[in-house]
Amino acid sequence: MFNLLENLVYKNKDYGKEGKLASYIPALLKADPNDLGVAIVKLDGTEYFAGECDKTFTIQSISKVVGLILAIDDNGKEVVFDKVNVEPTDAGFNSIVNLEVKDTKRPYNPMINAGAILTTSLIKGETEEEKVGKLITFMKKATNNPNISINEEVYVSEKLTGDRNRALAYFMKSNGILNGNIEEILDLYFRQCSIEANAKDLARLGAVLANDGIIPWSGEKLIEKDTCRIVKTIMTTCGMYDASGKFAVRIGVPSKSGVGGGILSSVPKRMGIGVYGPALDEQGNSIAGIKLLQDLSKELDLSIF
Amino acid sequence: MFNLLENLVYKNKDYGKEGKLASYIPALLKADPNDLGVAIVKLDGTEYFAGECDKTFTIQSISKVVGLILAIDDNGKEVVFDKVNVEPTDAGFNSIVNLEVKDTKRPYNPMINAGAILTTSLIKGETEEEKVGKLITFMKKATNNPNISINEEVYVSEKLTGDRNRALAYFMKSNGILNGNIEEILDLYFRQCSIEANAKDLARLGAVLANDGIIPWSGEKLIEKDTCRIVKTIMTTCGMYDASGKFAVRIGVPSKSGVGGGILSSVPKRMGIGVYGPALDEQGNSIAGIKLLQDLSKELDLSIF
Amino acid sequence: MFNLLENLVYKNKDYGKEGKLASYIPALLKADPNDLGVAIVKLDGTEYFAGECDKTFTIQSISKVVGLILAIDDNGKEVVFDKVNVEPTDAGFNSIVNLEVKDTKRPYNPMINAGAILTTSLIKGETEEEKVGKLITFMKKATNNPNISINEEVYVSEKLTGDRNRALAYFMKSNGILNGNIEEILDLYFRQCSIEANAKDLARLGAVLANDGIIPWSGEKLIEKDTCRIVKTIMTTCGMYDASGKFAVRIGVPSKSGVGGGILSSVPKRMGIGVYGPALDEQGNSIAGIKLLQDLSKELDLSIF
Amino acid sequence: MFNLLENLVYKNKDYGKEGKLASYIPALLKADPNDLGVAIVKLDGTEYFAGECDKTFTIQSISKVVGLILAIDDNGKEVVFDKVNVEPTDAGFNSIVNLEVKDTKRPYNPMINAGAILTTSLIKGETEEEKVGKLITFMKKATNNPNISINEEVYVSEKLTGDRNRALAYFMKSNGILNGNIEEILDLYFRQCSIEANAKDLARLGAVLANDGIIPWSGEKLIEKDTCRIVKTIMTTCGMYDASGKFAVRIGVPSKSGVGGGILSSVPKRMGIGVYGPALDEQGNSIAGIKLLQDLSKELDLSIF
Repeated sequence: MFNLLENLVYKNKDYGKEGKLASYIPALLKADPNDLGVAIVKLDGTEYFAGECDKTFTIQSISKVVGLILAIDDNGKEVVFDKVNVEPTDAGFNSIVNLEVKDTKRPYNPMINAGAILTTSLIKGETEEEKVGKLITFMKKATNNPNISINEEVYVSEKLTGDRNRALAYFMKSNGILNGNIEEILDLYFRQCSIEANAKDLARLGAVLANDGIIPWSGEKLIEKDTCRIVKTIMTTCGMYDASGKFAVRIGVPSKSGVGGGILSSVPKRMGIGVYGPALDEQGNSIAGIKLLQDLSKELDLSIF
Repeated sequence: MFNLLENLVYKNKDYGKEGKLASYIPALLKADPNDLGVAIVKLDGTEYFAGECDKTFTIQSISKVVGLILAIDDNGKEVVFDKVNVEPTDAGFNSIVNLEVKDTKRPYNPMINAGAILTTSLIKGETEEEKVGKLITFMKKATNNPNISINEEVYVSEKLTGDRNRALAYFMKSNGILNGNIEEILDLYFRQCSIEANAKDLARLGAVLANDGIIPWSGEKLIEKDTCRIVKTIMTTCGMYDASGKFAVRIGVPSKSGVGGGILSSVPKRMGIGVYGPALDEQGNSIAGIKLLQDLSKELDLSIF
Repeated sequence: MFNLLENLVYKNKDYGKEGKLASYIPALLKADPNDLGVAIVKLDGTEYFAGECDKTFTIQSISKVVGLILAIDDNGKEVVFDKVNVEPTDAGFNSIVNLEVKDTKRPYNPMINAGAILTTSLIKGETEEEKVGKLITFMKKATNNPNISINEEVYVSEKLTGDRNRALAYFMKSNGILNGNIEEILDLYFRQCSIEANAKDLARLGAVLANDGIIPWSGEKLIEKDTCRIVKTIMTTCGMYDASGKFAVRIGVPSKSGVGGGILSSVPKRMGIGVYGPALDEQGNSIAGIKLLQDLSKELDLSIF
Repeated sequence: MFNLLENLVYKNKDYGKEGKLASYIPALLKADPNDLGVAIVKLDGTEYFAGECDKTFTIQSISKVVGLILAIDDNGKEVVFDKVNVEPTDAGFNSIVNLEVKDTKRPYNPMINAGAILTTSLIKGETEEEKVGKLITFMKKATNNPNISINEEVYVSEKLTGDRNRALAYFMKSNGILNGNIEEILDLYFRQCSIEANAKDLARLGAVLANDGIIPWSGEKLIEKDTCRIVKTIMTTCGMYDASGKFAVRIGVPSKSGVGGGILSSVPKRMGIGVYGPALDEQGNSIAGIKLLQDLSKELDLSIF
């Protein structure tokens, strides 16, 4: 398996040259577009990896999965999905259109920004620090990595440039579906996006999801089985931006990407996969990472379909 | 003429019962839905009026005309219309859709909220107070009314409930077309909307526009002729919300309405007309006011077409 | 006046080089993109012209004005505007979107294709030939030109390539707002678009509209005054495709253009204007023709605003 | 298993009362809204069933799966997916909007009407009869039912009332993506929709898909494995109209519904399921059928996620 991963990293590394780093904040431009790393964690806890899988990056939209898990944990799925739908949309991740013309009362799903902001706003806590603490604690457990933390530089940049998300949030507030102090809600959202992890961390989180919420290396139950299933379903139908359909056809593994270059994948009953490759394709997904996953899915027959 | 106006007020007053007061802020609900008033100011300065034409109301969207005049005065039409288009749209006055899917760089026209916020942001001044001062000074001159002022209660309410406008403003900021401190820009916009006037005031402002910018009662030049023409054109194509086309067909006079119940009309080379009737139709226009204007246009053959 | 027109043709002729001939059917590509002609007909019947104003071209979308006049004449304005709205739209002339998402029961106005097809379907007659006859007879009277006829080559091409219009028509049929045999309705519409005229013809038609329906050279009443007013209003708000707003601001004269290169203009109480210049701008309007009209409007102070 | 199915039919039968029969053609209104039937075919060929699983109904949109399989078989997946995308959409099954405003060159997926019409047009054959023959032959093999045929009454009605599909087809023709005689293409499409089957037939087709294309009862290879996987993926992301996302979350089994009341489900590596219940919910899916599948998925732990 180590050999396979080495080969796939080697084979797909050069696709990075055809992609572009996310550029909306300067910090993301510091990444090396030629980096590519992959890690696999099986349900018996064994780990395999190759390439740049110790480099940290901000998980960005992958954090939408974490926010969703905590929101369901705090509120129950009925409350959460009464406020956020679970339907895929052909609108872009930061689109506001459907909140005006289709469903003014419910963002389409928790993987687009509007839905994710609303979902994150449902995480309970007396203070913002308490809520951030819950996110970090969850991530530390799910990744078996006590060093998980927030990249302050990225967080500050997100906050400074986050006007599109502000527009989404105020629009939802004016539609009566997002309550509370908008800047505080966004602050939590920007911090959540700025959590740093590496490919191994993502693979371990993926393994927890694949194992129906039981942490493979400790046997501890971290997430409800039903929540895991819901999350993997939504990752499949909505997780890869406007390329979710193509990704499902080609790779067929529940996955969520972020513009930091990470991809979190979870093969039910089998394994978690973490990928890092910061050069993105036009849809905002790791260009080399997707190629690598395509090969991996074929080699290991990973598609759930 | 006085008789005609009296008759038309009497005849159309009851339409108010079929309309509804604007209700998004409590202050507007204090209006009497049965009120109806009309004033005419001819280009020789003679004035005619009937009904409730001394009652003040907030001019709301009618202020978009004033903001546009000052923005052109401060920047020239090239600068203004490089940033705001002059095309009618079938989207609602507070729509955000076109900024995402059609023209991300230019709101469709200065009579929809997005365009008006952008236009108002172009008014020059060292401080917000200076800018507000320019708006008030202009209004005092154009209405020959030294008492023009801002309704503070309405202004505060607009500010409190203005999340849709916040969404529009942040969206434009994220699109790179609205610069500066959003809360300050909106503050000016909310104050502009909260200027109080009565039907006579609007009739005088309409007369100045009809007279190509020369104040009829003083001979002073207040607005450039070219600006007057542009403003009257945009009022015609975009001034009456989603009913602008029907209004042009039925009445044919450049007009701008506000949800406070006012209508500002300007018959080129002939007269200004001010109407007040706070009960609104479904498009947000004074329901009795429109009926009255329809009769008046027919009686005096006012259509410019 | 002859001098003025000559000068304006000379001055604006070269703009044709910056435009493009309509190319969706081969016949339109035979036009000479450098052609420019203009004609004016005053309400006393005097005529002025310069440039290529005897060359014929198919009137294309200008025929929407004629179809609307006949539909109102045959059905009354209530019936017509119960089926077709009179609101400007930001959707393109051949857009189908609003019939699905905004108003499934009424095209936005009679100047976009959907509205024009529906309007033309309201022209009454036992047979299609009778309906075509009414269109031709009207045009002959309105242009004082007994040779008005249909360009068969263009008509056949329109029919062959008219699948977008077929889609519009079948969509309206499925929405329950267009009745009858679709191919017959479209056949009439394609023939209407293929009527040939020259700039002088358009100027005379414009003069009839400017004269509230009375033919200037004969005193005969051809169109109801109210219908003329409505038509001129709709030309102003919706007549120049997506550039109607800008055209109103810059030129301020009720006008309708066609992709054959013609522009029909009507200055209420003053004159009709016909322009021919087949090279089009991006909105599908005669590029040199619009420049010429802009100069002409300034010189003669034609804006109605 | 027989007991389980009997119980689930009994338990969910009454949901039919809350739904409505499809009514756009009279023939569909003849169905009994209280009917409910289910059949399961395991990969060893054993069959289980309960309720109304011998009643035939037209498969309607379920035929989109069949059309897609044959189109891939005839052209290869590259050709097919070069013309039809595989992304889920928030637009309705018969929407035309995206063909104008988002992707004029590719319908979003083969499960919406536009995509399905285009897909079906790719089935090869000298004559329409030959193409229909291929559809029927495929269905006979996949269902082990030599009596599969077309409901002529439904087919004729579809053809008579199919103007929305005509609009879609002509729109795609005008966009240059659908070639050939539109009425012939639609005729094939309407016939395909009018194929009759029962719940057992669907269960067998589902079993073939679940078995990666090998017919369980004969061992014959009917469909390529890769095609089966693609089809099941698209069924998951796009198969249940606007409720595909919710269906995936709640039931988690690749499925395709039709307004005739049928649901085709395929649990990879495990079984095919056929459901019949003609009373539909608001999204056009069998209302009792979905409830039954939800129970069944829970009982047998069928979700693939």
